[in-house]
Amino acid sequence: MNALDMPTIQALIDTLHRIDSDDSVKVAIVTGAGRCFSAGVDLKAQLTALEAGLPGPMDLGVALYEAMLHGRKPLIAAINGPALGAGLGIAASCNILLAAHGAVVGLPEIDVGALGGARHAMRLLGHSTVNRMLLTGYRLTAEALAQRGVIEACLPPDELLPAAQAIALDIASKDPEAIALARQCLAAVETLPVLDGYAFESRLGRQLGETSAAQASMRNFLSRRTAFRARPDPGD
Amino acid sequence: MNALDMPTIQALIDTLHRIDSDDSVKVAIVTGAGRCFSAGVDLKAQLTALEAGLPGPMDLGVALYEAMLHGRKPLIAAINGPALGAGLGIAASCNILLAAHGAVVGLPEIDVGALGGARHAMRLLGHSTVNRMLLTGYRLTAEALAQRGVIEACLPPDELLPAAQAIALDIASKDPEAIALARQCLAAVETLPVLDGYAFESRLGRQLGETSAAQASMRNFLSRRTAFRARPDPGD
Amino acid sequence: MNALDMPTIQALIDTLHRIDSDDSVKVAIVTGAGRCFSAGVDLKAQLTALEAGLPGPMDLGVALYEAMLHGRKPLIAAINGPALGAGLGIAASCNILLAAHGAVVGLPEIDVGALGGARHAMRLLGHSTVNRMLLTGYRLTAEALAQRGVIEACLPPDELLPAAQAIALDIASKDPEAIALARQCLAAVETLPVLDGYAFESRLGRQLGETSAAQASMRNFLSRRTAFRARPDPGD
Repeated sequence: MNALDMPTIQALIDTLHRIDSDDSVKVAIVTGAGRCFSAGVDLKAQLTALEAGLPGPMDLGVALYEAMLHGRKPLIAAINGPALGAGLGIAASCNILLAAHGAVVGLPEIDVGALGGARHAMRLLGHSTVNRMLLTGYRLTAEALAQRGVIEACLPPDELLPAAQAIALDIASKDPEAIALARQCLAAVETLPVLDGYAFESRLGRQLGETSAAQASMRNFLSRRTAFRARPDPGD
Repeated sequence: MNALDMPTIQALIDTLHRIDSDDSVKVAIVTGAGRCFSAGVDLKAQLTALEAGLPGPMDLGVALYEAMLHGRKPLIAAINGPALGAGLGIAASCNILLAAHGAVVGLPEIDVGALGGARHAMRLLGHSTVNRMLLTGYRLTAEALAQRGVIEACLPPDELLPAAQAIALDIASKDPEAIALARQCLAAVETLPVLDGYAFESRLGRQLGETSAAQASMRNFLSRRTAFRARPDPGD
Repeated sequence: MNALDMPTIQALIDTLHRIDSDDSVKVAIVTGAGRCFSAGVDLKAQLTALEAGLPGPMDLGVALYEAMLHGRKPLIAAINGPALGAGLGIAASCNILLAAHGAVVGLPEIDVGALGGARHAMRLLGHSTVNRMLLTGYRLTAEALAQRGVIEACLPPDELLPAAQAIALDIASKDPEAIALARQCLAAVETLPVLDGYAFESRLGRQLGETSAAQASMRNFLSRRTAFRARPDPGD
């Protein structure tokens, strides 16, 4: 079920830090081994920690979500099965989301004396649905997520990873500095008013535009456009 | 039409405070008597107040919406007919929304020299729709709300209350302390950045996890899961 | 392609200021000449500015979006064709959005060494779609925008301007002071928590309600309602 105990969460955080400092990694796909994406926190480990008055897996959530939000490499969630509780939090912390038929998302915490995940769910879903999820444990199918435009596609299980890989390959072909600054924009502007957000993007855009790679991209685009325009347009 | 004059709004506020302090109430359904949910503020009372330079029903809106947002008991809107102006504000201030065929939501204020409700509409609807509602009085049907995932269901009128009651019964079966903390999370994290929001939920989740009721829920879940796993799985 | 160089952006800003101070203008429709809404910033002008270390068209974006956000007159986007980069920013800065079949929106910046538009896209679209747009240049069709409720309608090209004009005529028939205050509300409450937002609307609503035009609208509504009620209702 890919339940998240402390060593597993720490391993995820370490992996995120490692790929961020590895220039050969351009993008990562987050998926679950087996038939589940992640059923959330390991409740036995959490209960043991609570009984001992010690930090438990849920106390590592902030560090995990921070590593996901502020990473430099885009993260693609390939939601292959149930994504519950912290599993939903991980999926919602990815940049681009895809799911397979049979996947569901939900926040079962209310039935097991726990809380957490509502703010992540609000990244994806509207007011009433998030409230219903948190207050009742209600789950939404991958089909419903696709119908609402929350995920990019709901696919047969064997097409999920190929679709995620196609998007990953596309991202890997871009200028890495542009991608890193784009990720920084996405994380920052989500919580800024529209003018402040645009001003932030504009500053990072100027910073990017002053790099030689960016100016090469512009020249390349302009020369391709000129070549295209030089051809006679049969429609004219 | 369930128009809201000052005594009606004050009665709503008093009722909300009363159910919050009554341990026998677990959840409330908000609906309208007759064929209307609420046509909004009583305009005659508002005009009289304006002419006299006195507070009118619209000046009680902040207190009403505050009582709804910060209450401990979940509120389910059963939108049985038109929810206009403050009627939309009340529906949007509920946690979970259902509507009957024939219901509409809208902000008719622009045609009667009034304002208010746009921010509540933004809880439910996107940029262009909210702007169109406020600037033109445009209304959206319950069917359109369901299609956009804004409400949980659009039902025949005689199925509306039973559906709301089914969700209410589900909520009433949960640990009241978990529900109260979940409501507190939902109200707080809506306006927090994703990491701050999760950190808030995590603190309340720890607080909940330290209660004996929560730990009993965890133990109950773990023993049920163990029992389930002890059965041979015919699929293996 | 309606590429935006500095003189064009400055002309847009000047036009927005002019219509704001012209009492005979009640509302404006923003559309593109030819088959494109706007392909975004003029990249040749931007590259020239970057090479010279001078401000370029992208550095005028903040002033343009500020003039759009804080104007007094409602803006209706009639998206007649591709709205890319700053073209998407302009469309998203309008109050009400309509598009023609064949229109697309997207952020192609990542492929040309630029950034900007993600925050504007977040006004319209959800997390995964905006991230995919910024990180890959992914475009969304007008049909998909309509299906998600992002735009009011997706129409045959020859029906686009008439539909925008019908909404514009409706707005032009309203009390101009009510419309100006409604626009001020919409711009302000978008970034306020729900109670603060409503309190802001309530203050402007009171200010509006104290004008004689608003009280005349109320009296007119109340007298029409009384006349309507005086007729025998065949259903009773």
